[in-house]
Amino acid sequence: MEQAGYENMDPYQKDQPQPNLCFFSGLVLLIQGLGLTAVILVAVWMGHFQGGFAWQEDPAKEFNYHPVFMVIGMIFLYADAILAYRVFRNINKLYIKVVHGGIQLGALIFAGVGLKAVFDSHNLVEEPIPNLYSLHSWIGLLTVILFGLQWVCGFVAFLFPKVGFAGRTIYMPHHVFWGLAIFGLACCAALTGITEKALFSNGKNGFSYSKLPSEGIVINCLGLSIVCLAAVVFYVVTKPDYKRPKSPEEEERIQLASN
Amino acid sequence: MEQAGYENMDPYQKDQPQPNLCFFSGLVLLIQGLGLTAVILVAVWMGHFQGGFAWQEDPAKEFNYHPVFMVIGMIFLYADAILAYRVFRNINKLYIKVVHGGIQLGALIFAGVGLKAVFDSHNLVEEPIPNLYSLHSWIGLLTVILFGLQWVCGFVAFLFPKVGFAGRTIYMPHHVFWGLAIFGLACCAALTGITEKALFSNGKNGFSYSKLPSEGIVINCLGLSIVCLAAVVFYVVTKPDYKRPKSPEEEERIQLASN
Repeated sequence: MEQAGYENMDPYQKDQPQPNLCFFSGLVLLIQGLGLTAVILVAVWMGHFQGGFAWQEDPAKEFNYHPVFMVIGMIFLYADAILAYRVFRNINKLYIKVVHGGIQLGALIFAGVGLKAVFDSHNLVEEPIPNLYSLHSWIGLLTVILFGLQWVCGFVAFLFPKVGFAGRTIYMPHHVFWGLAIFGLACCAALTGITEKALFSNGKNGFSYSKLPSEGIVINCLGLSIVCLAAVVFYVVTKPDYKRPKSPEEEERIQLASN
Repeated sequence: MEQAGYENMDPYQKDQPQPNLCFFSGLVLLIQGLGLTAVILVAVWMGHFQGGFAWQEDPAKEFNYHPVFMVIGMIFLYADAILAYRVFRNINKLYIKVVHGGIQLGALIFAGVGLKAVFDSHNLVEEPIPNLYSLHSWIGLLTVILFGLQWVCGFVAFLFPKVGFAGRTIYMPHHVFWGLAIFGLACCAALTGITEKALFSNGKNGFSYSKLPSEGIVINCLGLSIVCLAAVVFYVVTKPDYKRPKSPEEEERIQLASN
C-alpha cells in the first residue's frame, strides 16, 4: 500500500527509514473488511428481509435505501477518507487532500440521497409520518449538518481559496478533532437507527426479534461490525507511529513560523 | 481545582509554570453539568413518566433502576474516573490511582446492580421475556465484560501486586486506549438502550413518541446530554496541554529504562 503512486512520492522519502507498517496494513485491511461487511449486512437486511428497494412509486420501499446509503456514505466512505493521510503516506500532500476531500464529498452525496429517501418515505405515504421526532433523527441530522459544515470549512481552509499557513496551523487540530467526533456521532446515529428500525419491524411480517431469527442476527452483526470498525479506526488514528511523516519542506515551514 | 490536596502536592511542582487551565476547569465543570443533567433526566424519565421504582416485588418497576444505575455508573462516574489524572494533576500519583480505581469500582457496582434489575425484570414476570437478543443487550453486555476485565488488568498492573516498570510502560497505552474505547462503547449502549426503551413505551400509557410530548423531549435531551458529555471528555483527554505533567522521578525512570 505504501508503494502506491511511487512516481508522485516526495523524493526525500524514498530512502528514509519507514516504521514497520505490516500491522498497520493489516488494520487497514481489517477496516475494509468490516466496512464491506456492514454494507453487505445492511443491504441484505433491507434488500432481502425488508422487501427490497424502490423509489418514490413505493415510499415504504424507498425507505430501504436510507440505511444502505447512510452506511455506505457516513460509515464506510467516511472511515476511508479519515485513513487517506495514513494510507497514502508517501504521496505529495496535495493529492492526498484531493483524495480525502473527494471521498468525503462522495459520502456527503450518499448521505443526501439517503436523507431524501427517509423524508420521502415519511411524507409520500397516504398518512404521512411525522419527521424528526426520535433521538436517532436528532443525532442523525446533527451529524449530517456538522459533516457538511466540516467539509466546507476544510475545503476553504486547505484547498480553495486556502487560508494562510498560520491560519491552517491553528485550524488543523480542530479539523482533526471534529472529523473524528463527527465520525463517532455517525456511528451513534447508525446504531440508534438500526435499533429503531429493528423495533419498528418487530412483530411485522413474521419477524420476532426476541426469538433472534436470521434477520435479528443480521441486525445485531451489522451493529457490531460498525462498533468494531469504529474501534479500529480510532486505534489507527491515535497511534503516533502510523501518522504520516512530515516532508522536510513542511518541517521547515513550521520551524520558520515558530521563530 | 488544581489546588485540591495541596499538602499532597509533589514539592517540585509548586513553583513550576503551569499551563493556563482556566478553559480546562470550565470544560471539567461542563462535564459535571452534562453528567448531572443525564442522571436527572433519566431519573425523571423512569421515576416520573415510567411509574417510579420498586425491587423484586414489582419486576416491571424494578426495570426502571436499570437505565438510572447504568447512566450513573457507566457514563457519569466513568467520565469522572477518566478525568481524575488531569483534574488532580499535582497530587502524588498513588493517590490518583486509588481515586481512579475507586471511582471505577463504584461504576462497576452500579452497573452490576443495574444488570441485576434488568435480568430480574425479564425473568420474574409471569411470562418471562427472553434475555440478550437485542443489539443494545449485545453491546451493553460486551461493554460491562470489557469494563470488568479492564478494571482487573489495571488493578493488577498498576496497584496490586503491580507489575514491573517495563511491563507497566508497555501496558499503559493499551490501558488508555481501551479505557476510552469502552467509554465510547458505554455511550453507544446508552443511546441504543434509550432508543429501545422509548420505542417499547411508544403507544403505552398515552405516550406517543411521534407527537414529541414532554416525555419524548426528556428522552431526546437525555441522549443528547450523553453525546455532548462524550464529545467534551474526548476533547479533554486528547488535548496534550491538559495531560498531567510527569514528576522528575517519573521522567528519570523513563530515561533510565530507555538507556
